[in-house]
Amino acid sequence: MMGRDAVDFTVSVVLPAAGSGERTGLPTPKQFCTFLNRPLISFTIETFERIPWIKSIVVVVAKESRDPMLQIVQQFCHTKVKVVEGGTTRHRSIFSGLQAFIESSEGPELPKPKVVIIHDAVRPFVDEEFLLKITLAAKEQGASGAIRPLVSTVIATTSEGFLDHSLERTKYRASEMPQGFLYDVIYQAYQRCSEFDFEFGTECLHLALQYSGTSAKLIEGPPTLWKVTYKRDLAAAESIIKESLSLSACLITGAMAETVELSSRLQKNLESHHMTLDVLPCIKENNELLLKTRNFIQISISGASLSETEEMVKVFEETKHALLYPVVIVWVRLCTDEATDIQKNVELKAIMELSMKVKRGNILLYCVQILYSKVPELWERSVERLTEITESLIRDRNPVLTGQMLQA
Amino acid sequence: MMGRDAVDFTVSVVLPAAGSGERTGLPTPKQFCTFLNRPLISFTIETFERIPWIKSIVVVVAKESRDPMLQIVQQFCHTKVKVVEGGTTRHRSIFSGLQAFIESSEGPELPKPKVVIIHDAVRPFVDEEFLLKITLAAKEQGASGAIRPLVSTVIATTSEGFLDHSLERTKYRASEMPQGFLYDVIYQAYQRCSEFDFEFGTECLHLALQYSGTSAKLIEGPPTLWKVTYKRDLAAAESIIKESLSLSACLITGAMAETVELSSRLQKNLESHHMTLDVLPCIKENNELLLKTRNFIQISISGASLSETEEMVKVFEETKHALLYPVVIVWVRLCTDEATDIQKNVELKAIMELSMKVKRGNILLYCVQILYSKVPELWERSVERLTEITESLIRDRNPVLTGQMLQA
Repeated sequence: MMGRDAVDFTVSVVLPAAGSGERTGLPTPKQFCTFLNRPLISFTIETFERIPWIKSIVVVVAKESRDPMLQIVQQFCHTKVKVVEGGTTRHRSIFSGLQAFIESSEGPELPKPKVVIIHDAVRPFVDEEFLLKITLAAKEQGASGAIRPLVSTVIATTSEGFLDHSLERTKYRASEMPQGFLYDVIYQAYQRCSEFDFEFGTECLHLALQYSGTSAKLIEGPPTLWKVTYKRDLAAAESIIKESLSLSACLITGAMAETVELSSRLQKNLESHHMTLDVLPCIKENNELLLKTRNFIQISISGASLSETEEMVKVFEETKHALLYPVVIVWVRLCTDEATDIQKNVELKAIMELSMKVKRGNILLYCVQILYSKVPELWERSVERLTEITESLIRDRNPVLTGQMLQA
Repeated sequence: MMGRDAVDFTVSVVLPAAGSGERTGLPTPKQFCTFLNRPLISFTIETFERIPWIKSIVVVVAKESRDPMLQIVQQFCHTKVKVVEGGTTRHRSIFSGLQAFIESSEGPELPKPKVVIIHDAVRPFVDEEFLLKITLAAKEQGASGAIRPLVSTVIATTSEGFLDHSLERTKYRASEMPQGFLYDVIYQAYQRCSEFDFEFGTECLHLALQYSGTSAKLIEGPPTLWKVTYKRDLAAAESIIKESLSLSACLITGAMAETVELSSRLQKNLESHHMTLDVLPCIKENNELLLKTRNFIQISISGASLSETEEMVKVFEETKHALLYPVVIVWVRLCTDEATDIQKNVELKAIMELSMKVKRGNILLYCVQILYSKVPELWERSVERLTEITESLIRDRNPVLTGQMLQA
């Protein structure tokens, strides 16, 4: 990443996550809603944890969420996280988070950072490039914040509920997260601010201006900064995650002429649908390529054993490759004749059993059977259907359909 | 609907849909993006068309979208729609829409309404109750508009890109759609407004205030009023539509003791997952119930013919039941012994062929096979799996998986 070198000072993150998320209309606060077996907040933590110049992440949760949060940290092996208890309002929670760098009654003190980034647990899609901009601007100016153009016109209402006036849209911006501060600037602002601010305020930039005299540099962020607010946003977030997981796959062709031929047709089809493929004859000594993606298409001839799939699964288990995102394996079974029903039943059972076993480890195993035809149009159509089914299995990552033997 | 009677005057709708939708980052303007085989704008039109007191809907499109829009109107049998060409800005397009009630050069004139509702083509989820509030307030006050609380703090920036001040969130609202106007109020406002307004203005309420002296009544709307703006919103809209389609199903139990027993277990499971079920022994003379939902679960014994499914399909085709939303049929095949592989292949082919035939008519046919077991735990587990698979097929409506025979 360009510009990383400029961060020659310590940077930490405070993630307030003590909200109850009433607006989603769901019983679980939205930061704890799960996609692909993982709570939203873990995706946000992962984003920061991947960035080498971010040293620590203080997650501020409500008292009743402390144990579940510690459980999440452990389950998904988050290493930079410290969990602290928040207050009754957003500002009190952020202040609690900032105090984690000062007080030491609860165990080892975190080193006080030069710059602290304040973000929302429910904005999982912030990228390193933008965080870098926010961080460097905060270092330079004392405070910085993300802004976005207004989507709706903002209007002022009279006390009787009528239109008073509408604001000129071009003069105003929506204030979003992340925001960055010199630690001393924001900590001082919280020390000096009033009970009224703690209770009713929402804007950290405002506190920095009012109580530390620091006017924040505002930087326009990408639309991906948006905040998961309503139930529909959960579906949107899931679709973004699933789409980004489906961009590439590893195609294991097998060594037989028939499987290699099928592989090259499938490869052509999938690439024309904008999937990037790594193509391997077999998994042996290819662990590095295997760990580049979380989607696998394995072509084999009907009757072949599942041993190569089992080997692959072993690699994933040893490397915890499926810890953060489910791994999909589409096992394609090429049949050269139809008269193998008993054999087929045996294979169906084997695949069903293996799929149930590996599902616990977040590995989703599906099987697609394709019947070879000498009639070019029929063969073409089957390969086209195999393409569609494979794409759909990879994109949807539907845990209910694992172990099924689909027909191309 | 309570209060409908109060609408004893004519109401029409203007739907501006001439925008290019740059913010989605997609090549197609978002109002023409499709879910479940239908463009978003058709869902919005359907919402208004279902309401008996709305007389006509003027859809304003860009010149190049005129033919595709007329094609959409024809394909989905929209009956209240008139398509007109818009201008280069939102305000010009709305004015073009309003003129459809005045000018008659392009064919039969639409009767001038008392109240006109202005909405967005990309807000498909407005409900009748809220439209009624907007309409009655517009009749009474001359103008009315939907508002929502601000999701982000709104800030003013200095010319150098620094924070100037933040607005007090409680004093301001986001102005949303729909808005309602006495036709004469808004038409006069557009006749009097300036070129600058036409070019740079965004807010109809502002024009009504400035040029007709009418201060709009503001009414807080539900969160569902939100506007499909970014690509992620398309996924959110699709998930809302799919969820609302999956709330109920019709379960056809068959007449045999085994199928009835399985049905009652499946019913219990699905109901405990909050699906509402109508239960029928067979489809005969039950057309009315059939047309209440778009999801069907048909239990039959292995080896039974597909003739009842074919009959059902005929009813749907005759009544155009799948015109607006895909109909799902999950054909459950109960096997009492395993030794029927040839039979099974024959059935698989029949189901695959029928599913391909009916898919063209927007009917999605899937098959799930369940093997009877005398061991209670095994049987219980199979029924549980059948429940999960059935729910997933109904919820996802995945056209790629039709014709598959899944294993419960």
